[in-house]
Amino acid sequence: MTDIETVARRAAAAAAPFAETVPRERAAALVAAADALDAAAEELIAVAIRETGLTEPRLTGEVRRTTGQLRLFAEVVVDGGYLDVRIDEPDPDYAIGPRPDLRRMLEPVGPVLNFAASNFPFAFSVAGGDSASALAAGCPLIVKAHSGHPELSRRTGEVVASALAAAGMPDGVFQLVEGQQAGVDLLRDDRIRAGAFTGSTRVGRMLADIAASRPRPIPFYGELGSVNPVYATAAAVASEPDLVAGFVASVAGSAGQLCTKPGFLFVPAGADLGDVAAAVAETGEHRLLNPGIGRGYAQRRGTVLAAPGVRVLAEGVVRVDDADQCWVTPTLVEVDLDTLLAHRDELLEESFGPLSVIVRYPDAAALPAVHRDLFGGNLTSTLHATDADTDTVRELVQALAATSGRVLFGGWPTGVSVTSAMQHGGPFPATTTDATSVGTAAITRFLRGVAYQNAPQALLPAPLRDDNPWRVPQQRRAAGASQRWGSLTGAI
Amino acid sequence: MTDIETVARRAAAAAAPFAETVPRERAAALVAAADALDAAAEELIAVAIRETGLTEPRLTGEVRRTTGQLRLFAEVVVDGGYLDVRIDEPDPDYAIGPRPDLRRMLEPVGPVLNFAASNFPFAFSVAGGDSASALAAGCPLIVKAHSGHPELSRRTGEVVASALAAAGMPDGVFQLVEGQQAGVDLLRDDRIRAGAFTGSTRVGRMLADIAASRPRPIPFYGELGSVNPVYATAAAVASEPDLVAGFVASVAGSAGQLCTKPGFLFVPAGADLGDVAAAVAETGEHRLLNPGIGRGYAQRRGTVLAAPGVRVLAEGVVRVDDADQCWVTPTLVEVDLDTLLAHRDELLEESFGPLSVIVRYPDAAALPAVHRDLFGGNLTSTLHATDADTDTVRELVQALAATSGRVLFGGWPTGVSVTSAMQHGGPFPATTTDATSVGTAAITRFLRGVAYQNAPQALLPAPLRDDNPWRVPQQRRAAGASQRWGSLTGAI
Repeated sequence: MTDIETVARRAAAAAAPFAETVPRERAAALVAAADALDAAAEELIAVAIRETGLTEPRLTGEVRRTTGQLRLFAEVVVDGGYLDVRIDEPDPDYAIGPRPDLRRMLEPVGPVLNFAASNFPFAFSVAGGDSASALAAGCPLIVKAHSGHPELSRRTGEVVASALAAAGMPDGVFQLVEGQQAGVDLLRDDRIRAGAFTGSTRVGRMLADIAASRPRPIPFYGELGSVNPVYATAAAVASEPDLVAGFVASVAGSAGQLCTKPGFLFVPAGADLGDVAAAVAETGEHRLLNPGIGRGYAQRRGTVLAAPGVRVLAEGVVRVDDADQCWVTPTLVEVDLDTLLAHRDELLEESFGPLSVIVRYPDAAALPAVHRDLFGGNLTSTLHATDADTDTVRELVQALAATSGRVLFGGWPTGVSVTSAMQHGGPFPATTTDATSVGTAAITRFLRGVAYQNAPQALLPAPLRDDNPWRVPQQRRAAGASQRWGSLTGAI
Repeated sequence: MTDIETVARRAAAAAAPFAETVPRERAAALVAAADALDAAAEELIAVAIRETGLTEPRLTGEVRRTTGQLRLFAEVVVDGGYLDVRIDEPDPDYAIGPRPDLRRMLEPVGPVLNFAASNFPFAFSVAGGDSASALAAGCPLIVKAHSGHPELSRRTGEVVASALAAAGMPDGVFQLVEGQQAGVDLLRDDRIRAGAFTGSTRVGRMLADIAASRPRPIPFYGELGSVNPVYATAAAVASEPDLVAGFVASVAGSAGQLCTKPGFLFVPAGADLGDVAAAVAETGEHRLLNPGIGRGYAQRRGTVLAAPGVRVLAEGVVRVDDADQCWVTPTLVEVDLDTLLAHRDELLEESFGPLSVIVRYPDAAALPAVHRDLFGGNLTSTLHATDADTDTVRELVQALAATSGRVLFGGWPTGVSVTSAMQHGGPFPATTTDATSVGTAAITRFLRGVAYQNAPQALLPAPLRDDNPWRVPQQRRAAGASQRWGSLTGAI
């Protein structure tokens, strides 16, 4: 049994010493963790294949992404731009009254609890993006392991913990716990200062409610559910011979168990998509992550297939083996837009697995309103259009941006790049807040602003000092710099 | 009766057109509102004096701050740095796999509901900081007026609404509602996408819980309660002859009805503070904001005075006039640290009014632990020390930073400057989240990240385009720029 009290106490005790580690030390520790994971990759991937049913190529790519994002965050830490350092020099003539010396930076919030996901046993799990960004921010981390890959979680945890310790990080900066009760108990513990989660809407909402109802509420960054609609214009369908093949590959990849799987493809009523069934026929059976997900998928698929007006394009396989594991091939169905509007209760919910719905729309001009009506919050929305469509799709693009974290022009939403400009998070239920859990902006979730007023240089944190020993970007405002807003009317 | 449905519908309808206003137009509208308020200042201040009991000099300064922050946010809008534009150029050789063209910026979240405060009828009310930052972000604004100054709220609302309309802003960008039920009903409305609040911990927590429990939860930025402890070393007491006078002025200003009023002053057990009662004696009677606040203050003061071990230094006046208004002068009491620790239930809570507690501590070395034990979340903490104290106060400064939004070195926490580096927000209960409600960083609360992948230039928002028509700061990452993290181990 996990001793929650000890775990919370160790994390809290690590907060101050970890926050004080200098950037190059913390960055080196992240790189050391990445190196250690790369060195152990062969062994870890073998465990992951057995525990999750995901394929070796997919898991190999996922390890590369996981260690890559640890190294990317190391670079973010050394760069220091994420600290958002602002220095206002004192100004006795400031327009609203004398201004003191004010210096503000972002500082770590304290211990972070990360609930790992089932579907990315590396990239959204023990050493995944939430973990990398929390550690990069300087926050002690507790990972609640996902029950779907316990051995992999323990082994990954050992590799990371050893690497961080060998790199000189304080005791208690990384801890692993197992079991739902341990996670909930820690989430309620006053010493935990932020939560992160990737998983279902049901569990994510339950945890978000716990975080919000604590005596001292904390932010809870959950990535919950998304159906990632894709829209294709008539011209795009006509000019993209690979449209259906690309769609099927995106739906079938990792057996559809991706948060960015396209759940709906909107095409014109009369457009010729060719033989969709044939495009699916070559997809081999893929095991779903665990028996529970298999049962959930079978049930959800049954609901979709039973909805009135649903036409089956590719029925797909759902086969349970002797070990209770579920094996699947893609199920593709087609509906008219009116059917989708009439049966949204059955059809709109996310299907976690390789099921997707092709929607035939009669009038492209109605799509912006249809989209806003159906899809209030998604991680992604995608548009396939041609240059000739530019003026007619403008309103649809605005609707997609208003309801999604990422808008794609061509291509498919699966395969999320980890970069400076990535946004993986959108209006609820895509995420519980609008923050991103992928890319370098994810670090901001675990930071808070602290201002120092008239502090002597000797008592300022390094990033705020005039001699700037860490060489971080400093936004400096000299006295008089803002005086022009006294007469801004004339200037603009 | 306010028609909530109409208000919410108008705000939602304004979201897209308001988001599309170009920076110079939106900035000009903010400046126009500031100019209109300045032009109406004499009339507005007369109403405010009558409705709040605050003094003309204080209110004159508050109007200057209010219109100044509208102009400051106009500058922020034109500058465009707040958009946090990130452009990743496509990179086929990116370390974790080919990278698409990704461009990310912050976009307005949609309609914002702002619950105005009683104690700043201008700066945290209808046209205050929350309103200015929401409008600057491009979010339609609904202000729930505070019942303490209804006529001022209506008149200010008319001035602002006219100015925004005359400046060409879309219909529905600014609306005023009255009454608690209207506020709660709107907070529950799905079209409202963020809430802001300044007021009591009790009401703020109630509203935060409503926001968190909606079918689609929204962020709620509440500034609730803070006691703003001040610590003085023996050397500081000895070398600052004005220490007590400054403290009294900070406690007495605006009759102590400021969120940053110093509620505790910690001084060495043996330090000579001089005649504290005499320092208070010249403070004239000041009316509290309204009869409800008067009753709350009288009750809270009674609890403090009745606590065992409390020594009265200046008893102060609490007088209720024929109109049920409460008039006060400062009440200052003194306790030993042990008394405070033993009677924290009676003594620790914020007193909204001119009451403050001087705490005599026997051992400066114990202060960091004492502070962390007593004060989990405050807007400010202040340290009075001398250069000779530098090494001995280091741990205390870390404790103050870990629990506060702003740490002051000398001076007093009242009188919050509105600047780029201000932080007015700290761990709960200072604020419901760690965000700031004062200063230019406040705009971030009403924005969310949106990424565009492989978008044609013609469909990108202006700030993300290569020709950068608004001339906003763009952080650009060229292909290959991050390749060094492949070998980061060697580099750091």
